[in-house]
Formats: sequence, C-alpha cells, structure tokens
Amino acid sequence: MIEKKIKIKDIASLAGVSAGTIDRVLHNRGNVSLETQDKVRKILKEINYSPNLYASALASKKVLSILAVIPQYKPGDYWEKIEVGIRQGALELSNFKVNIRILYFDQYAVDSFCEIMEEAIASKPDGLLLAPSINSITKKYTQKMDSADIKYIFIDSQIEDANPLAYFGQHSFQSGYLGAKLLFAQNIEIKEMAIFSFYHEGQETNNQISLRMKGFLSYRENKNIRGKIHRASFLEDDKERNEKIMKTLFLEKTKLGAAVIFTSRAYIVAEFLEKHNIKGIALIGYDMLEKNIACLKRGTISHLIAQRPEEQSYKAIKALSDFLLFKKKANKINYVPIDILMQENIDFYNSMFCCG
Amino acid sequence: MIEKKIKIKDIASLAGVSAGTIDRVLHNRGNVSLETQDKVRKILKEINYSPNLYASALASKKVLSILAVIPQYKPGDYWEKIEVGIRQGALELSNFKVNIRILYFDQYAVDSFCEIMEEAIASKPDGLLLAPSINSITKKYTQKMDSADIKYIFIDSQIEDANPLAYFGQHSFQSGYLGAKLLFAQNIEIKEMAIFSFYHEGQETNNQISLRMKGFLSYRENKNIRGKIHRASFLEDDKERNEKIMKTLFLEKTKLGAAVIFTSRAYIVAEFLEKHNIKGIALIGYDMLEKNIACLKRGTISHLIAQRPEEQSYKAIKALSDFLLFKKKANKINYVPIDILMQENIDFYNSMFCCG
Repeated sequence: MIEKKIKIKDIASLAGVSAGTIDRVLHNRGNVSLETQDKVRKILKEINYSPNLYASALASKKVLSILAVIPQYKPGDYWEKIEVGIRQGALELSNFKVNIRILYFDQYAVDSFCEIMEEAIASKPDGLLLAPSINSITKKYTQKMDSADIKYIFIDSQIEDANPLAYFGQHSFQSGYLGAKLLFAQNIEIKEMAIFSFYHEGQETNNQISLRMKGFLSYRENKNIRGKIHRASFLEDDKERNEKIMKTLFLEKTKLGAAVIFTSRAYIVAEFLEKHNIKGIALIGYDMLEKNIACLKRGTISHLIAQRPEEQSYKAIKALSDFLLFKKKANKINYVPIDILMQENIDFYNSMFCCG
Repeated sequence: MIEKKIKIKDIASLAGVSAGTIDRVLHNRGNVSLETQDKVRKILKEINYSPNLYASALASKKVLSILAVIPQYKPGDYWEKIEVGIRQGALELSNFKVNIRILYFDQYAVDSFCEIMEEAIASKPDGLLLAPSINSITKKYTQKMDSADIKYIFIDSQIEDANPLAYFGQHSFQSGYLGAKLLFAQNIEIKEMAIFSFYHEGQETNNQISLRMKGFLSYRENKNIRGKIHRASFLEDDKERNEKIMKTLFLEKTKLGAAVIFTSRAYIVAEFLEKHNIKGIALIGYDMLEKNIACLKRGTISHLIAQRPEEQSYKAIKALSDFLLFKKKANKINYVPIDILMQENIDFYNSMFCCG
C-alpha cells in the first residue's frame, strides 16, 4: 500500500555493489570500473532516479529573493485572498532561504503600477509574481525583466507578448461565457439588461474584465439572444455617482430584467436593489467577497462565479520557487476551476486547499 | 513574511534560563525552582507551545492498523476516486508506522457487506474508514466497533445513531435540493419527468440516494412545482431490462421533459437518449465519471453535481491517523463542497487537492 522511496543502498543492492560505489558514480568521482559505471547508470535510468535536489537546496547558502506585485486592497477584497495564498506558499518555503516580499500598487492608477514596478526591478529580485495591469504598460516592464533575467509568473490575468514562466488564473473569456449561460438559461424573460464596469477616470479596462465581457457577448451572439444592453461604468469611491447611475437604470428604465458585473463588486448593485426593494432582476456576479456571499444568500445575486484566488497565488509561488530552487518547470498555462455558487451550495464551498 | 517555528532555545531566551531548564520543566523532571517553573509555564502558555507530538509519533514502535471498507468497483467508477484519496493519505503517512489496508464489499449485496465487516472487526484494527451500507445493517457493526474500542470514520454517507469520530462527505439532502433547482430553474417547460434509481433485487436504497431524493422532492414542494413523476429502477448488470424501462419511458411516454439519476450512472440514460436521437430532455446527474463527463460535453447531460471523492477519503484517512497518532480530534461533520459542472466549466474542473 505505502510507496517506498528508493535509497542509495537499494540501488547498490540492485547493482550488486557497495553504496560508496553508487555515490562515486552519481558524483563522477573516479575509482569505479567503466563496466560497473555502465551497470549502475543503467539501473539509475531504469528506476528513473534523480539526485536529491531538495537536500542540495536546503544546504545552499544563497538567499533567493521573490517579490509579489499585487493591487492594494481593503479588508474583504478579492486581493486579500491572493495574499493569503502567497503567505501560505511562503510558509511552506520556510525551510529554504527564500525571502518573499509583497509590493502593492493602486490598480486604478497606472502611475502607481509603474512606480512599484520600477522599484521592484531595481531591487533585482530572482523572481517576481505579478498581477498585470493593462497590456501596454505591463509589457514595458516584462521586457525589462526579460533583459535583466528576472523570472516572472502572472496571476489573475495575463498579457500578450510576454514571456512568463507560467500563468495561474481563470480562463477569463470562458468565465464571461459561463456568466451569460447562467443568466440566459434561467426561467425568465430578459428584454433589457445592464452591464456594469468599474474604473477610475481615464483608465483603460483591465484585461480580465474585457475578456469576461467578450465571453459574455459571444454567448449572447452564439445563441442569437436579443434585447438591449445598457452599459454603465462605476467610479471607485464615488458612491453618489454610482447611486445616480443605478437610479437611472433601475428606477427609470423599468424594463431591466437582468444585470451582470464583471468585477468583484456585484454587491453594490445587489444592495441598491435591496434598498429600493426592486425584485425580479437576475443578477450575476464574480468572486467570493463577503458582501457578495451575503447577497447570494439573501437571493439578490442569483449566481456568483469564483476563481480560487488563494490557489492561484499559492501555486504561483510554489512554481516560481520550484524553478528558482530546483530548475523544475511548471506548465505555462494553468487555469483554475471556474466555480459556480448559488444559494443552494454556497454554505459548503471552500476555495482553500484541503491539505497542509 | 515567513513564520518561524519556536524552538526550545527561543523559549529559553525568552525566560532567561538554559534550554536544559526548559526541557526539565516540559518533562516534569526536578531540580528547577518553583519560581522558574512558573515563569517557564507562563511563557509556554503565552506562546501556545505544544511538545512535538510529531517527533514522538515518529519514534514510536507501535504499528497502527487502519482498515478502509469500501464497495468494490470497476475502473472509472466513483469509488476508484475514493481509493485514490485513501492511497494519497497513506503515502503522506509513510514516515509513520501505519499499516493501511482496503477491504471491498459488493454494495448491492448485504451479505457481502456483513462478511467483510466481520472480517474487519475480527482483525482488531485501531481505526476503520467506512463507506456505510444501509442503516440497519451498518448499525450492527458500529455497535460492535464501539464495544471493541475501534475508532471509525464515515465517508460518502452517514448513518443515524452511530458514534463515528467524524464524517466526510456531501450534504446529500442539499445536493438533491440543488439538483431540483438546476433542473426547474432552466428555461424549459417540464410537464412530466423521470427519476431513476439503481438497485439490486430486494435491496433497500442506499442512504445517500434516498436523502438526495428527499432533497429533490422538497425543492419541488417548496416551489409548488407540479407535473407527473415517473419512477424507474435499474438493475445493476441487467442491460436488457434497463433498456426496456427507458424505451417505455422515453419512446412511449413522449411528454417526458426531464430526468434525474441520483446515483453516478446518469450516462446510461444519456447514452440511451443519444442512441435514439431523443432531444430536448433536461438531464441532471451526479459524479465525475468519465462517461458522465463525455455526455456533459456532448450536451446530453445538462448538469453534473460532484462531491470531491478524493478529498473525502484523503481527509478521512488524515483525521483518523491524526487521532490515533496525536489524539487530535477532527470536527464531527465535514461536508465537502457541492460542485456544479456544466459544458462551460467542465474543462477547468479539478477535484483533486492542489498541493502535494
């Protein structure tokens, strides 16, 4: 039942030589006949033996420096869970000489992203875990990292024309496509609907959000779904303006049957509907924020689509350190599951890893 | 960033005494002043120090015996994944002296279950991981285990009036309730539907299946959903009979708009529909069998509800060994997530743990 690790002495017994001989062959130290060397190497190959990189890494004196560059956040935000995953990864690396530090940028201010990336690259880390900003800006820094031989991994979303070691995140297009399916397969008639974005004045939309939007619209087109779409953009920290937008949409345009929000802030719309006692709007949101979950449980949000943030960043930290410590390469593209949460299964959901 | 384990010498430095003194206090060996003892104990309490049970367990000479009693299965069956979880748990225990053995019973034959349980109990294991059979029969053996002080944990389903250390599995009622929601919230009209069971002649229904059924019917009642329900029972290994049942239901009663199967064999109905080119039946199934997944991808099954079998048995083995090795108690009831899979998210699903 229990698998056993192969030890040097097991190989020695297979080859009919001493453990010392195996050790000499493994480390290319002389005093072993060519015939014996061949025999030992053949056995090593057959049993797929690899020397203990783990032990070598433990004994290494070099301190690896890993930086994580992610948006700053408020308690309960999506990014808090990304940080949980980073810290979990760091904890499991505590036996190695790895120094992990998190730098935060304002996701609604390109200047802030640039400043933090300049600082990060200037500190010459061995590896960098990056939640990308908009394509054009991020690309400038991935090029700098390529030149400086800084290895980087994307989480949350990826940008084109970059050379990351790997990506860990959701298939954003597909999560938008699924959002549309969940909305339009419901037993309701939707004549008009609203799509909410979230941005800071003058900023392009985040890559993930625009891919979700594309996926959503693509489903609508594939299924020949008609009906007017109202697009509205919230401003971070401008409650009054956001409220006004929702009043226009929900109180003046009474044909609205559904709404979708591609960021993690579906609760803003849900709480508005609750406050004004507006019923019968099918509302789809993303991410397991506490406020979103509360609205899902009260029935104002019909579905939440989740993307395992802790798993993304945990796996990214592990992949980055596995490469830097052991030269072990991760798969390039690593999509996390697209989880569907409803009133009926939310109480049993657990996005965290089961072990450890 | 990286948390550090507290060592004896750290405590010694906090208390301003030698490491030897700390050791003497920890093991209640004399030659330490009461004042110093108090000081050390206070610090130990403050930092929430627990002696290294892990090291003691590693050094122990006793070999623990754990048995897992689960249904025998064919490749690709649900129970194969339960075994994967058991083996994963066993692998991680390979540093300890734990002997884990799996015994299989025929889930459609009560005699077989009894025979295996007699054998299991007679071998006097320290712990037993059990996938229960029907209530009345299982109870007979849990009572025997209680008397013999054999610790046991339920997976997959639980029975009433037993004293397991813990249960790891789905909330079966809720997974049936969700099945109904997924079916009836679809944008289709369902006048008549079929519910399929699976049994061996003369056997009561498995506990999990009957709870799913209750949950399903409860949703229907809560939402005042009407329409005729046809109930049909398949026989394991009687293809001809099963085929005949489906012919009657789907080819002669053409009003059927939906079907649900509470066991893992939804693919049997789906493949029948495909073979006879019957369209427009909403079909809900359970569990990630390869054949089910194929039908989901082809669109003949609309939703699959999954219950993370590997996680159930992996966590159960860990909980059982944690108790037997370290006296660490698990939570009594541990529900796994109820995962919803559709054509749009199946490609990204991964029921396995992310680490290890």
